[in-house]
Amino acid sequence: MNDSVGIVTTEYAHFDAELRLESGRRLGPLTIAYECYGELNADHSNAILVCHAWTGDAHAAGRHHEDDRKPGWWDNMIGPGKVLDTDRYFVISSNVIGSCKGSTGPTSTNPTTDRPYRLNFPVIMVRDMVRAQKLLIDRLGIAKLLSVVGGSMGAMQALEWGIHYPENVYSVVPIAGCGRTSPMAISLNALARQAIFNDPLYKKGNYRPEHPPADGFALARAVGHISFLSDASMHLKFSRRFSRMDGMFDFFGKFEVERYLDYNGSSFVDRFDANSFLYLAKALDLYDVAWRFDSLEEALATLTCPSLWFSFSSDWLYTPAQAEEVVEELQRQKKPVSYHLIESDYGHDSFLVEPEKFIPFLREFLDQL
Amino acid sequence: MNDSVGIVTTEYAHFDAELRLESGRRLGPLTIAYECYGELNADHSNAILVCHAWTGDAHAAGRHHEDDRKPGWWDNMIGPGKVLDTDRYFVISSNVIGSCKGSTGPTSTNPTTDRPYRLNFPVIMVRDMVRAQKLLIDRLGIAKLLSVVGGSMGAMQALEWGIHYPENVYSVVPIAGCGRTSPMAISLNALARQAIFNDPLYKKGNYRPEHPPADGFALARAVGHISFLSDASMHLKFSRRFSRMDGMFDFFGKFEVERYLDYNGSSFVDRFDANSFLYLAKALDLYDVAWRFDSLEEALATLTCPSLWFSFSSDWLYTPAQAEEVVEELQRQKKPVSYHLIESDYGHDSFLVEPEKFIPFLREFLDQL
Repeated sequence: MNDSVGIVTTEYAHFDAELRLESGRRLGPLTIAYECYGELNADHSNAILVCHAWTGDAHAAGRHHEDDRKPGWWDNMIGPGKVLDTDRYFVISSNVIGSCKGSTGPTSTNPTTDRPYRLNFPVIMVRDMVRAQKLLIDRLGIAKLLSVVGGSMGAMQALEWGIHYPENVYSVVPIAGCGRTSPMAISLNALARQAIFNDPLYKKGNYRPEHPPADGFALARAVGHISFLSDASMHLKFSRRFSRMDGMFDFFGKFEVERYLDYNGSSFVDRFDANSFLYLAKALDLYDVAWRFDSLEEALATLTCPSLWFSFSSDWLYTPAQAEEVVEELQRQKKPVSYHLIESDYGHDSFLVEPEKFIPFLREFLDQL
Repeated sequence: MNDSVGIVTTEYAHFDAELRLESGRRLGPLTIAYECYGELNADHSNAILVCHAWTGDAHAAGRHHEDDRKPGWWDNMIGPGKVLDTDRYFVISSNVIGSCKGSTGPTSTNPTTDRPYRLNFPVIMVRDMVRAQKLLIDRLGIAKLLSVVGGSMGAMQALEWGIHYPENVYSVVPIAGCGRTSPMAISLNALARQAIFNDPLYKKGNYRPEHPPADGFALARAVGHISFLSDASMHLKFSRRFSRMDGMFDFFGKFEVERYLDYNGSSFVDRFDANSFLYLAKALDLYDVAWRFDSLEEALATLTCPSLWFSFSSDWLYTPAQAEEVVEELQRQKKPVSYHLIESDYGHDSFLVEPEKFIPFLREFLDQL
């Protein structure tokens, strides 16, 4: 396709630095996996950082090889002529620390022991992820990002960038985000955690990669999956249909929605690490933009750049009300803020499923920068 | 207290009958656990049947002995002078079949094998529960119930009574109910199921009562628990507070809401049977008032008595929209139907937590019968 960035390669940046984390612990040396699309212009003013969600990775656009079945996770957003136009912008996508997709995380080798960190990996916050990203942006020679754009956990990163690196961003675009996770979101993550902890194969995090706590992890993923969907999207996709393979009065018989959750949970086990999943869940739970500030008001007072916010009507994980809590405070403080509540039936996943609904607003915003 | 029904005793009615179930299987002999409050009048016209939810039981009001710590589950509704006024009405509360609270269920002895049914218990539907209740009502000599009142799964029973026994009810009051469970509700039950199935102690249902699949079952209960609450009620009760016993950067540290879910899940294991829980979850999932009818319209066409419906604004398990789907069809068919959307922050549990918000409407409805 002529609107694709084509074949791309994940790069790995190594840093000998030790990162001082919010917990007080230190983490280093660091590796950050990233991909770049488009060309950095002469004055390095056209760089946009894209931040991924919970189980995302650096591979946001294009394909890794000719036969690659699936493009990057935001391929409908990034490419020649697309809203994150690689003919105009230099788009960077980096994998967060704590993940298992190339950046330093629980599966990485702990230099102190020469064995995988596993649960010796420190608990991190979204702020720590952003601090690590800053090393990468510095390395790439970018003094000021044109924008930081992200959905879900990516929205949290975008907001943290705006607040903690005001000199280094011209704008931030938090999509399907919030100022802090809700008790409901924490509870759902608690279910996911417990599902993994309950699995005898979890072994307090010391499972071998070839023997992961597959049943518990698949269930944990199913919990997450449900929270990304909505009742409306489930109705559209499955309604109340019973699996054709099962009898309705079979005790172990399943509805189609159930079979789908099972299938997705199981396939997920092969492509993600359970400890990473748990560390990132923890970062989500701990996320509060007011952390180390006296209040939300005080935290947001430090945001000076324009911000563009999107929330989705059927998102019950990070609800419109949660984004609005932040947006309204920014408006009260007379900050340059735009907000759009997008009507969509696809729940939290809307930012991945129906980008066409917010792309026009994003395009206009970027054009005006 | 002078508005209590006082000390009550659970009775057990035995029936030699075999119930023909919706699945085509037969179940019998049957025991039904029940409690009665107030006096049946001379012409047997003052009987109200109260139907419990998923993990409820026959003990709806009063206390079992002087030192009983907790009264029955709807004690704020049933008693002298209360809305279900035992000075005027004869109130019956019966435990559903499939439960483990005295009525025939998976923990009962299978007469064919002289051992507990466990997974040899047939899959039942809400309609089967109602068919069993009918035996009890006949036994008590009541030709026509003044009303059938219930919340959640109790609402489903109330509606089924109205549709399948039109000659035997003067009215029905479904509270926090629906015409059919949604894919979202089914998905949540799927998580609960899988949590139990994942527990090695479950042993395909053949666990010994003294060694239940405690970890999986506690997690299953936590799933249910979350679905009964709302983000608003969690905010009110826990906000984002971290447990004082844990460090925030402790990998296994917990938020208060998480600790609460854990505690409730674990204590639940001691008072309910996992197989019963699963059979009743299945009945909830299979619930569709249009079952064996051609459509919802056709099913509701058979409802002739007045019905009074309540839904709760923050209920995301059986949403107001689901109750309204039924109510609007009844209105279209010019049936005698009243509906109140109650503003409450307590989610699906509102019908237990804030009955004072709908009691006036229920009182007026009963007075006019």
